[in-house]
Amino acid sequence: MQYKQDRVTGLRVAYIGGGSRGWAWGFMTDIALDAGMEGEVRLYDIDRDAAEKNRAIGERISACPQAVAHWRYTVSDSLQSALAGADFVIISILPATFDEMESDVHAPEALGVYQSVGDTVGPGGFMRALRTIPMFEEIALAIRDYAPKAWVINYTNPMSLCVATLYRVFPDIRAFGCCHEVFGTQKLLAAMLADLEGIKNVPRQKINVNVQGINHFTWFSSASYEGGDLFPLYREFCDRYYETGFLKDKDDNWMNNFFACSHRVKFDLFRKYGNIAAAGDRHLAEFMPPWYLKSPETAREWGFSLTPVSWRKQDLKARLARRARLLDGTEAPDFRGSGEEGHLMLGALLGLGDMVTNVNIPNRGQIPNLPEGAIVETNALFRRDAIQPVYAGPMDGNIQALTARHVLNQKNTLQAALTCDRQLALTTFLNDPQLGGVDYSDGERLFDRMIRAQLSWLPEGWKKQYR
Amino acid sequence: MQYKQDRVTGLRVAYIGGGSRGWAWGFMTDIALDAGMEGEVRLYDIDRDAAEKNRAIGERISACPQAVAHWRYTVSDSLQSALAGADFVIISILPATFDEMESDVHAPEALGVYQSVGDTVGPGGFMRALRTIPMFEEIALAIRDYAPKAWVINYTNPMSLCVATLYRVFPDIRAFGCCHEVFGTQKLLAAMLADLEGIKNVPRQKINVNVQGINHFTWFSSASYEGGDLFPLYREFCDRYYETGFLKDKDDNWMNNFFACSHRVKFDLFRKYGNIAAAGDRHLAEFMPPWYLKSPETAREWGFSLTPVSWRKQDLKARLARRARLLDGTEAPDFRGSGEEGHLMLGALLGLGDMVTNVNIPNRGQIPNLPEGAIVETNALFRRDAIQPVYAGPMDGNIQALTARHVLNQKNTLQAALTCDRQLALTTFLNDPQLGGVDYSDGERLFDRMIRAQLSWLPEGWKKQYR
Amino acid sequence: MQYKQDRVTGLRVAYIGGGSRGWAWGFMTDIALDAGMEGEVRLYDIDRDAAEKNRAIGERISACPQAVAHWRYTVSDSLQSALAGADFVIISILPATFDEMESDVHAPEALGVYQSVGDTVGPGGFMRALRTIPMFEEIALAIRDYAPKAWVINYTNPMSLCVATLYRVFPDIRAFGCCHEVFGTQKLLAAMLADLEGIKNVPRQKINVNVQGINHFTWFSSASYEGGDLFPLYREFCDRYYETGFLKDKDDNWMNNFFACSHRVKFDLFRKYGNIAAAGDRHLAEFMPPWYLKSPETAREWGFSLTPVSWRKQDLKARLARRARLLDGTEAPDFRGSGEEGHLMLGALLGLGDMVTNVNIPNRGQIPNLPEGAIVETNALFRRDAIQPVYAGPMDGNIQALTARHVLNQKNTLQAALTCDRQLALTTFLNDPQLGGVDYSDGERLFDRMIRAQLSWLPEGWKKQYR
Amino acid sequence: MQYKQDRVTGLRVAYIGGGSRGWAWGFMTDIALDAGMEGEVRLYDIDRDAAEKNRAIGERISACPQAVAHWRYTVSDSLQSALAGADFVIISILPATFDEMESDVHAPEALGVYQSVGDTVGPGGFMRALRTIPMFEEIALAIRDYAPKAWVINYTNPMSLCVATLYRVFPDIRAFGCCHEVFGTQKLLAAMLADLEGIKNVPRQKINVNVQGINHFTWFSSASYEGGDLFPLYREFCDRYYETGFLKDKDDNWMNNFFACSHRVKFDLFRKYGNIAAAGDRHLAEFMPPWYLKSPETAREWGFSLTPVSWRKQDLKARLARRARLLDGTEAPDFRGSGEEGHLMLGALLGLGDMVTNVNIPNRGQIPNLPEGAIVETNALFRRDAIQPVYAGPMDGNIQALTARHVLNQKNTLQAALTCDRQLALTTFLNDPQLGGVDYSDGERLFDRMIRAQLSWLPEGWKKQYR
Repeated sequence: MQYKQDRVTGLRVAYIGGGSRGWAWGFMTDIALDAGMEGEVRLYDIDRDAAEKNRAIGERISACPQAVAHWRYTVSDSLQSALAGADFVIISILPATFDEMESDVHAPEALGVYQSVGDTVGPGGFMRALRTIPMFEEIALAIRDYAPKAWVINYTNPMSLCVATLYRVFPDIRAFGCCHEVFGTQKLLAAMLADLEGIKNVPRQKINVNVQGINHFTWFSSASYEGGDLFPLYREFCDRYYETGFLKDKDDNWMNNFFACSHRVKFDLFRKYGNIAAAGDRHLAEFMPPWYLKSPETAREWGFSLTPVSWRKQDLKARLARRARLLDGTEAPDFRGSGEEGHLMLGALLGLGDMVTNVNIPNRGQIPNLPEGAIVETNALFRRDAIQPVYAGPMDGNIQALTARHVLNQKNTLQAALTCDRQLALTTFLNDPQLGGVDYSDGERLFDRMIRAQLSWLPEGWKKQYR
Repeated sequence: MQYKQDRVTGLRVAYIGGGSRGWAWGFMTDIALDAGMEGEVRLYDIDRDAAEKNRAIGERISACPQAVAHWRYTVSDSLQSALAGADFVIISILPATFDEMESDVHAPEALGVYQSVGDTVGPGGFMRALRTIPMFEEIALAIRDYAPKAWVINYTNPMSLCVATLYRVFPDIRAFGCCHEVFGTQKLLAAMLADLEGIKNVPRQKINVNVQGINHFTWFSSASYEGGDLFPLYREFCDRYYETGFLKDKDDNWMNNFFACSHRVKFDLFRKYGNIAAAGDRHLAEFMPPWYLKSPETAREWGFSLTPVSWRKQDLKARLARRARLLDGTEAPDFRGSGEEGHLMLGALLGLGDMVTNVNIPNRGQIPNLPEGAIVETNALFRRDAIQPVYAGPMDGNIQALTARHVLNQKNTLQAALTCDRQLALTTFLNDPQLGGVDYSDGERLFDRMIRAQLSWLPEGWKKQYR
Repeated sequence: MQYKQDRVTGLRVAYIGGGSRGWAWGFMTDIALDAGMEGEVRLYDIDRDAAEKNRAIGERISACPQAVAHWRYTVSDSLQSALAGADFVIISILPATFDEMESDVHAPEALGVYQSVGDTVGPGGFMRALRTIPMFEEIALAIRDYAPKAWVINYTNPMSLCVATLYRVFPDIRAFGCCHEVFGTQKLLAAMLADLEGIKNVPRQKINVNVQGINHFTWFSSASYEGGDLFPLYREFCDRYYETGFLKDKDDNWMNNFFACSHRVKFDLFRKYGNIAAAGDRHLAEFMPPWYLKSPETAREWGFSLTPVSWRKQDLKARLARRARLLDGTEAPDFRGSGEEGHLMLGALLGLGDMVTNVNIPNRGQIPNLPEGAIVETNALFRRDAIQPVYAGPMDGNIQALTARHVLNQKNTLQAALTCDRQLALTTFLNDPQLGGVDYSDGERLFDRMIRAQLSWLPEGWKKQYR
Repeated sequence: MQYKQDRVTGLRVAYIGGGSRGWAWGFMTDIALDAGMEGEVRLYDIDRDAAEKNRAIGERISACPQAVAHWRYTVSDSLQSALAGADFVIISILPATFDEMESDVHAPEALGVYQSVGDTVGPGGFMRALRTIPMFEEIALAIRDYAPKAWVINYTNPMSLCVATLYRVFPDIRAFGCCHEVFGTQKLLAAMLADLEGIKNVPRQKINVNVQGINHFTWFSSASYEGGDLFPLYREFCDRYYETGFLKDKDDNWMNNFFACSHRVKFDLFRKYGNIAAAGDRHLAEFMPPWYLKSPETAREWGFSLTPVSWRKQDLKARLARRARLLDGTEAPDFRGSGEEGHLMLGALLGLGDMVTNVNIPNRGQIPNLPEGAIVETNALFRRDAIQPVYAGPMDGNIQALTARHVLNQKNTLQAALTCDRQLALTTFLNDPQLGGVDYSDGERLFDRMIRAQLSWLPEGWKKQYR
């Protein structure tokens, strides 16, 4: 790559999961709108045809008059060829298919365990991790061998475990995980300012927050706007909307489809624990004991709904239809910006401007009362060739306790997945708060059923135990 | 105190809870049989009459022909006078009465939560901690002011939190907690050697173990006898007795009344987690999710029974009767030795001989994957004026996860108790594995009921919240 | 204080050492030029007359047409009245007088030990610390009692030990130390860009650096400008000017009077250790073995000179004359800005805009291979009511070794000063690299002579040992 | 190996440096006198003839009537064949020859730097490390590949760096370093008891000590005998013999040839630092600034002498002559016991009896204020298949500072040796206290001269820099 007058050219970006049916298009327009950098995006996907289609969409975007940067798009035959010499690697894959996710989400319902998302923790998140970790093991080895100095941005869930796998397999990797859930809560606080104080249109970036936690279970230990502490206002906000929930205008960007969420879980967590939980309620509820997810009705009472995988399958069809329209030109690319920060982080790492934002990286003391090395989410300073975590301080009381439980479960999940250790896997699966009231033998039967449902995606070490 | 020819005289021991109906008598005979030291025991108890009775029993023991050391027994008017100038302090109190314990143990049954002991963790252990911590706060302040250099031996439950309170209130205290549960599992391994290998009468001290954990939830990560690894044998032992349980001869020392315990929980934990759980099954079961304690029947199936507080009340009557007999001479003191190690630890700290044994002290890295400062139970080297923990290494997989959960609960319990913080207390109470399947509102009602049941024993900070 | 439209009014700033003959005037003009905040500065000084004179100068500055903020200046009778209710505390004092500093700097010359500054490390810095620490002990206690929530900014040397004392005496203090030495090296890199690349007038803030170290012995482990790594260029720069030294235009701001410094020490340290030492050469040389300070001639060969205390005394006269002119109006205040960042930090802490800059605070892991709690200098994020250190990473090879030696000396100096422990003080004094070749008995004689030279400023604990 | 009735047979011990001219003979008699174990010793040496000769001596010892265990002795052709299947590995080699040691010890005299031993720290120790570390790198790799589970006992100097290399190259190694220097100071305390108190013939094992430090620079932070604190007595002892030194009867065991040492350095260090330095004065003096080693005369004044390498060469001849006598039977093996603990440690690791003694292993928190992972010397508990460090606590004041300096030098020496990094090596060499007053350019010339003196023993990475 070359630097010239605040602009970098000749960048090489490897995009693993480049056949993405949606997320990629937002990224492509984001970088087309960013004058600071230009280069080549190498799309790699096990579904090569999907990658080819995205290449064509990418070229279309590059050719649009709105584009101020003109990126080249290519399709790579192999992980190796995508990675060789890459400056950046983006990982955004769907581990297996929605059929496996169907088991993740719905199989536990037999035990009365309901999940709103099922991709992070709980029985669904656990099973998804078990099949995703070996994929990331392969990716990490390839990065070690072909692009050891590249910056690696992960968007895949389960976020914490994907990033943890990368570091475990290749400790010198320069990887980080990005997620927009925190942004949503910043927007909620902006909406609160409008609702209670009449201060309109505050951009979320102006809501100053100290982020602590792990992905999808992040908390603000402080929040301010223009020097003013937002906690007293948030307490008032919770009181006003505790019963009814709060609904701001729908955000119709498909990437941020929040489904119905009224923040009642968030308000309740504030009352119970004192800090502002900072992710969508559907995610937050899954990290807790089964207080908000006893049944679909309970979820509805708390103002959110469970996302059935059938909906995801339907939604995928809509996205494929949109892809067809983007390809044949009947729909124009959406140049309003995705709201994601990925391209800004790239810019900051290239030295085009410092940036402080939340990110998932190994704990180097930024949260001193979580284990060293665990993948945590806090603010970090992005600078030329460096991501430096900002000291976020110890987590409070039971927020630490709740989080640490998941951190240790993730540690044990990773170990079990890498070694195909069924007993460790099973006891970890059962240590999830969602299963805190489930009997061991019931849990074991569920575990085996869910393993079998995804057995074809698991390594030989699992297959031979389940023959 | 004076040293002369391997013997220390002039020792001053303050005994807080000196009116003890049982434990004290064992200690008195133990020290009467130990030729290495002699001095004065100052009995202090809020029930002064009980202390006076124990003074008389102590004098009787000193006067027995079996006694090789002749201790003086006095009764102190106040904590301060007992402590002033003491070399050692023993704390062995009953926090409140069996009426409060009745609530601890039986109130949660309304929610289907059964407890076998109810004095360590779970709703009962939590409530006991809430009333005990302020008592230990007072004791710690008195030690700081009147006997800051004394070695302080605690026998009171909840052990970990009692010791934690002492260190939190007076960080320079030299306190440690002693418990015989580990001995019981050493004896089980000795019985196993007899049963499977025909090696009879191995003293428990010859069963070499690496101890890791917290009080009543301790584990052996290794165990050996004369150079031989006992793990393979234990696996065989578990297999043989998994279904039936194992019963060795009854140990009839009243101090070690194990009630019926067939070690089936211990065997099951070995299968599930890979290390040897090293406490009585009644204790172990309480640290786990409600797998072994779903109902009194479940407990019986697992080969142990729940200790009703009515039994304790009855047992107390028997001990009071025994006290009367000891006082009027119709029963002679029992000079067979209690099996406790307290007096040996005193000796080691006086420099009369090194000793490696398990003890509860703050974590200084002996278990590197539990938080620094938490009260943990591992082996330590007892030497003249020093207790030096022996590096026990990191805990394995989910054993760490299970233990860390309790460690953080204990941290939060201590904080809540010292500050009378109801919200922190309630969320901590609900974070116990025994309540992992309980709904928040049900839990909250139980919490309030149990607080009220012991309100007269709680500090003003609680009373004013419950008026 | 009140927030209104991005502006804070009603601030209360306590200025300890408010009789300052110079530094205060720069601060007064800086805040007069900052539209974001306004309030009262309470000047406190043991020389009350000097504080009164500065009050008058402050009022003059507030009245100037250039002033956009109009601060009130008052003189406080006591530390307590200055502190009560303060939002910020500034500490900028001269510990004792230039007579004591004369001993600090020149007494060691008898042993061939020459010092260029003598206020940080070495025999002079040590002795200065010994008399300053008790002063900061008193200040810390007063802050604890009268302004426990205030942000405390220290400018006094020895910086690290002054800040360390504040935290040792009052662990909950919110103190930090500011120093402009790092700015000087950023400016040097900007001058390098002009000299080698023809890129003119780059503001120092655009030179991106990762700062590691302790005050006056700070290092850049990376440096960049607009995405470009500056290390290769710096290597070339060192090669070109290694022999001659590099002289940019004189900076004539009195606060940044660098005396003659040609950066040869800095270039040499780069060759020897691989990173960019980031303080003036006069400071850097004092942290090293006596390689650059064998004699005044050696220093001159390395392109810097020793600052005699006689010069400081002369300079003080010039500053007093300037004060007289500022008071009688024959000289106008200098409104060009001091180049210091103090007022910007105040603004950031008030929530008026985030800021990343270097600061001296306790190590919370920002430099993982220096001891936790040591006062280190790294970048930190300044935000509303928070200073969050940015992870700077481990220090390299011998840079760590050299720094750790001073860190441990500072720890022992603090302990010795607080306890008046002569033997600890003496062995610490002798552990300084400047005295690495000095014999113990020679060192002891020097130590005693220097103690006596400042005995009237030391606590009773010292006096009674030297009677 | 097999266990039978408290006895282990079939042990396989690989002895690297098995041609040893002295140390091996003591070990051979020690194990011949130990009834607990028996097996095979495989002697491996680059001087095969020497190994053959020791095989013959070993067989003679086994055949002696005093031998209660009858070990077999074999000579191995290669490191690999010696290691394959070994239960224990002993490493006791001479790195290079006394010619290289001649440079180590005497070359620095040109700069007025005198060394009493020259094998641990200082310029000599540094250079010895540089050539030894690659040898240990090779040994570590062979152990990893051929005997990964073996316990590895190192006796080679520089001890700390040899052990550090083993762990750096093969982190799962089970290695430890043994040294008898601490025993010497225990014996000194026993002699003190005889001298001052008339308590005769106290065995050193009964002198209870808490050991802290690094090899050859170990300290007792406490010492007691039968419950009595020895520190007050040691203070009196120091006072009495401070000027004259203390000489007990000569120990004539050749392995413990102390040369003339009167403990004056030890007494002086006690006065200066407050704890009991616990190694021979010749070693201790080398860790300090050049206070005790300014000249041969200074050393003599402090009551010890410098060991010239010419003496070692002479002594070697004497030992070769003794070897000849042992071989031809004109001298009988010495069955009085070497006083070393190696065989006892083997026994403890085999489960034949617990043992607490000092040992060199990685810091796992046993000294919390030295870096994690550094090779430190403290007490440890030796048990079946485990060495568990005993918490020794933080080091005091400047003892920590002095020690930490060497610890960091060792870290940098290891790194420089493994990477052939001349600049890191040179700056580390110059950071030794012995060179604290030496000018950089003088030091650099000395460094180059000493490198050249041993260049043939260094890896190619060095050779190509010095062609």
